[in-house]
Amino acid sequence: MTQLSIIFLGTSGSWPTVKRNVSAIAIKRGSEILLFDCGEGTQRQFQKSNASYMQISKIFITHFHGDHFLGLPGLIQTMQLNDRKKSLSIYGPKGINQLMENILNLGYFHPDYKINTYELNDEDSLHFGEYTINIIKVDHGVTTLGYSIQEKSRPGKFDKKKALKIGIPEGPLFSKIQKGETITLKNGQIIKPKQILGPARKGRKIVISGDTKPTKKMIDFAKFADILIHDSTFDSKLKDIANDYGHSTAYQSAEIAKNAKINKLFLTHISPRYLDNEILEKDARKIFKNSYVARDFQEIEVNYVG
Amino acid sequence: MTQLSIIFLGTSGSWPTVKRNVSAIAIKRGSEILLFDCGEGTQRQFQKSNASYMQISKIFITHFHGDHFLGLPGLIQTMQLNDRKKSLSIYGPKGINQLMENILNLGYFHPDYKINTYELNDEDSLHFGEYTINIIKVDHGVTTLGYSIQEKSRPGKFDKKKALKIGIPEGPLFSKIQKGETITLKNGQIIKPKQILGPARKGRKIVISGDTKPTKKMIDFAKFADILIHDSTFDSKLKDIANDYGHSTAYQSAEIAKNAKINKLFLTHISPRYLDNEILEKDARKIFKNSYVARDFQEIEVNYVG
Repeated sequence: MTQLSIIFLGTSGSWPTVKRNVSAIAIKRGSEILLFDCGEGTQRQFQKSNASYMQISKIFITHFHGDHFLGLPGLIQTMQLNDRKKSLSIYGPKGINQLMENILNLGYFHPDYKINTYELNDEDSLHFGEYTINIIKVDHGVTTLGYSIQEKSRPGKFDKKKALKIGIPEGPLFSKIQKGETITLKNGQIIKPKQILGPARKGRKIVISGDTKPTKKMIDFAKFADILIHDSTFDSKLKDIANDYGHSTAYQSAEIAKNAKINKLFLTHISPRYLDNEILEKDARKIFKNSYVARDFQEIEVNYVG
Repeated sequence: MTQLSIIFLGTSGSWPTVKRNVSAIAIKRGSEILLFDCGEGTQRQFQKSNASYMQISKIFITHFHGDHFLGLPGLIQTMQLNDRKKSLSIYGPKGINQLMENILNLGYFHPDYKINTYELNDEDSLHFGEYTINIIKVDHGVTTLGYSIQEKSRPGKFDKKKALKIGIPEGPLFSKIQKGETITLKNGQIIKPKQILGPARKGRKIVISGDTKPTKKMIDFAKFADILIHDSTFDSKLKDIANDYGHSTAYQSAEIAKNAKINKLFLTHISPRYLDNEILEKDARKIFKNSYVARDFQEIEVNYVG
């Protein structure tokens, strides 16, 4: 079973504070790290966390406000100084190609490893074997993308009793069935996986909203997610400011969480004005109990449900 | 007496570590801060220190390796988000104008306050009333500048005994003399400051080498400095690597300190390989006792001598 975890590396909105750095979320899946946004100082946040920037395979940028991408040049440079050889893929909205060209022409640095950049559009999907990255355009004034990581569904639960009853001998045939293969017994009997396995179990799903005011389409996009990480720059008292600047309140994020029937909500991009988590968590929990303000270096294991 | 202090905000070489951020040195003089280099994450180092980035009036960049300037775009942006109105001056080697143009065109940000950039050359001097910034080209492979801050000399010590003996009444005439003004006593006698004051006392001098291998001209440039802050990326065992890459060893920095007859040496741009200060301090103190490895957030008061 592939380990899947989220490490919050920066949860502050717009500028850093002593407690929170600017935006970055690492998603660790097996030996690979997917990085969502890369605010200034992200390389050092990695050093202070349980994750290594050398494991990053793909970086996804939500939009081109400085607190979401200014950590890229330093991170790219440090990976080279630490002998990175394998290529790096960087995804973002239209403009990422030009932005990366500009970033790679600052000062004297030029990377020796390959950097591939990809411009993404609303409703794009990227298929990477065991998981898919889905893209949604959100509403933040400037072009901004939200992302979901959706794992492929897994075969259903193995019913050992049934298997023995049918006459499958305990051993290698069990694991073939478990993997979804059809097998033939010594007596010539053909057994299909669906005879032994329960209904397919859905893969895990994590959704990252990016900076955005609340949108109806996020409800569909986040449907049944295990984890939704949503912009929650302000609390309900500052709803007008929040929405005018293309951000959400904690309560508005929680409304989406509730309507999308997700499991656990993490609030992020917290305005530096909030010195603790109480106001925002209270605001969100009025409507969705399983709401938490994300903290820098917090690590969330995402387990299979069922 | 104007307060003068140095706050080390980043003392690591090339990339950050958990303990040390990349290069930045704040010099606080009265209500003004001069920032020398601005590596990634400098704005947050300010937040964790006793200095405020809102007090920065001038930024001096030594050269265009990423660990010395990649904190500029975030710092400039955050100062604006915190309502900076006053203009900011940024100095650096030839190329700083173009670099700043590129930096200010990353993403969507454009500053509302004025940013003036200035290209500097070897042996330039910038006069700012009470102090002068002197520039020296050092030897780091790419064009790199060292800087000194030299205060104007102050009037000599007031000799109270002598003043009373000559017949100057205690009171406002004392302070006029102290400021260097010629006074006339009630009996018509004219008193010149030099009759009462000791020899002029030299202003304080701080020298920052930038990244460099040891150079002979640094000895003259740093002559009699109160504080010399010198590249000390490696220890003597790694002398060849140090010099090949345009850096100095702790011992080589200390040799310059000794020959320049400076007061106190701070070693900086410490390679991430050194987990404590011992090796480098030992190396330097073989030849110059008053040598210290700078630590992040260390604050040094620079007092008048004599």
